[in-house]
Amino acid sequence: EKERLDMALVVAEEPAQAAAVFTKNTFCAAPVRVSRAHLSKTGAPGEGWGIARAIVINSGNANACTGEPGLANAESSAKTVAEAIGCPEDEVLVASTGLIGVQLDTGPFSEGVPKAISELSPEGGELAARAMMTSDNHPKQCAVSFSGDGIGYPGCTFTVGGMVKGAGMIMPNMATMIAVITTDAPVMGPDLHYALTRAANESFNRISVDSDTSTNDTAFLLSSGKAAQGMPSFTADSPAFEMFEHALASVCENLARQIAMDGEGSTRLITVNVRGAKTDEQAQVAARAVANSPLVKTAVFGHDANWGRIAAALGKSGAQFDAGEVDIDIMGIPVCKKGLTVPFDEDEALARFESREIVIDVDLGAGEGSCTIWGCDLTYEYVRINGEYRS
Amino acid sequence: EKERLDMALVVAEEPAQAAAVFTKNTFCAAPVRVSRAHLSKTGAPGEGWGIARAIVINSGNANACTGEPGLANAESSAKTVAEAIGCPEDEVLVASTGLIGVQLDTGPFSEGVPKAISELSPEGGELAARAMMTSDNHPKQCAVSFSGDGIGYPGCTFTVGGMVKGAGMIMPNMATMIAVITTDAPVMGPDLHYALTRAANESFNRISVDSDTSTNDTAFLLSSGKAAQGMPSFTADSPAFEMFEHALASVCENLARQIAMDGEGSTRLITVNVRGAKTDEQAQVAARAVANSPLVKTAVFGHDANWGRIAAALGKSGAQFDAGEVDIDIMGIPVCKKGLTVPFDEDEALARFESREIVIDVDLGAGEGSCTIWGCDLTYEYVRINGEYRS
Repeated sequence: EKERLDMALVVAEEPAQAAAVFTKNTFCAAPVRVSRAHLSKTGAPGEGWGIARAIVINSGNANACTGEPGLANAESSAKTVAEAIGCPEDEVLVASTGLIGVQLDTGPFSEGVPKAISELSPEGGELAARAMMTSDNHPKQCAVSFSGDGIGYPGCTFTVGGMVKGAGMIMPNMATMIAVITTDAPVMGPDLHYALTRAANESFNRISVDSDTSTNDTAFLLSSGKAAQGMPSFTADSPAFEMFEHALASVCENLARQIAMDGEGSTRLITVNVRGAKTDEQAQVAARAVANSPLVKTAVFGHDANWGRIAAALGKSGAQFDAGEVDIDIMGIPVCKKGLTVPFDEDEALARFESREIVIDVDLGAGEGSCTIWGCDLTYEYVRINGEYRS
Repeated sequence: EKERLDMALVVAEEPAQAAAVFTKNTFCAAPVRVSRAHLSKTGAPGEGWGIARAIVINSGNANACTGEPGLANAESSAKTVAEAIGCPEDEVLVASTGLIGVQLDTGPFSEGVPKAISELSPEGGELAARAMMTSDNHPKQCAVSFSGDGIGYPGCTFTVGGMVKGAGMIMPNMATMIAVITTDAPVMGPDLHYALTRAANESFNRISVDSDTSTNDTAFLLSSGKAAQGMPSFTADSPAFEMFEHALASVCENLARQIAMDGEGSTRLITVNVRGAKTDEQAQVAARAVANSPLVKTAVFGHDANWGRIAAALGKSGAQFDAGEVDIDIMGIPVCKKGLTVPFDEDEALARFESREIVIDVDLGAGEGSCTIWGCDLTYEYVRINGEYRS
């Protein structure tokens, strides 16, 4: 077997506009605190945007629940990078994923960082995506381009590209979703943060592998502006910014779906679409209850078009609706109409479960609110991965 | 293999004071609606207490998501019982557990009810507890007695006894916790309901097998008053009522723990004690997050004293605390002090995981609130039971 890669380094040629969103877990990890502090210094205090030259990510140790020594170690890893590339320490962002409650050994950084710098390359994306992996089966990347024609940047082509690891808190002792997204579109920090927050809410915050939230979740977004050098940055509400937001949303949604599809032990991506809720928030609550239900997840694993479990999850979610108004389709097959069972072709249903993505459509019949949540099935393999003794 | 029992009938010699608490699931089942309506007629509308002569429980079909025909079938089963024992139909309460979305065949009741009546016996408790079972491995019963001496009922002995099935929504297509508790202590309906609500909140509402809430959850409490005939009923706030509440709480807690211990595929009861929360509600939120975490549940299955997963669950729970103030013990072994890891003897921890009950103690260091939640581990067997195709 190949030696496991365990450090990824992303370096911008020039200081880049940067934004980030972080976990809301009370036990947030040292690298989250350090990255937040660095952005506060290079940008505005507590706003989640600033300037960055580099992002360093290690896998294997989450540097969470490690107190003051943990903060010092995260700072030290940033300093190692800053010295090696010659930039202020505050312009280095950090992220970690791995074991919780164990102090980070900073030794490997002194050796690894110069090695990584010597190997920096525009083609290094896949190796970096691999180096971030913990229990992930596949590296996850996505890029979307759009033309500047007709939006004030004739002849320019802009790209938004990203890589991501993990899903929720999906790993034995491990943690975390970490996303690094970059763009050559010229967007300033505050607008990057606005766009990233919106995109993350509709993507990374819409997936659920096991309902656990990591201590280390982080998404970074850097803008170099290289694709339109010397030109003004996209301004909020402009057509160019709208195109940028659309590209960013596509990348985030694609990466989020990849995470759910690669959930630990998962064999199926489960897409839960709820519409007809009183509000979007209630739709989200209902969709999340279905996607998180162990009984729904095991039913999908068992290829069972078991709408009773979906109904039970909806009913306990807290969303307001009348049970007699609910329609449920599984893989396009109506199985429940107005709260009552609809006879369906079990063989056809079984055949449709061969698909890699299982779509559950719910209409609550109570309003105009809607939401989509992506999850995955619950399998023996999930229990094996997470139940094996740490050793 | 023995023929499966699928109907339990509880009959009081005289009309008994009765109370009930029901599922809050929006998709509540027909028997829940019918029992609620019957209590409203014999007692006070919507108050959850009244008069009952009998309770009939079937397993195999939940009679949930069955619309008007479902209500008619539930009424019909009550009517069959009422005619056979000669009481008003409103004095019969009903409960069902089993498949959702399938109409109940009332045929078996016409044959089964007279048979059950002919076999009524004070010793029938265990058979009744078995007949309620679906995925349960064991029938679950408990009884507690207390003396009337010193509380105004000299020479009397009072008993509170109960049986229960299931846990949350733990069964493939099946549903439900159903509890039937009886007492010979003289307590009137409103006081029964008050006591049952309080006891259920501290017991049945404190367990979690898989975080799903059934469409059919029901707990009944009947009082015959036979142990102190001709004497006044216990009045609220009296010493006798206090003794009764204590006995009821013990029975409910014992039954609740039996449910969690018998959770589908479970090998370990997990008791999560949270103290030091700002409020009892926040303690409950935090304890529930730990007990429901698939990562904590698989760690216990793997005999892994993995406090990082416990910390992550606490951190995402929404309870307010300072991560630097948190202490966590697993099986009495301190593993986290003030948010930091404490070295511990892994062999000793492994040895303590041999226990059938795994106790997790958390002190959030934020106040005086506390709560206990009982759960169970997540195993291959859970996935097998719930992932097998319905066939």
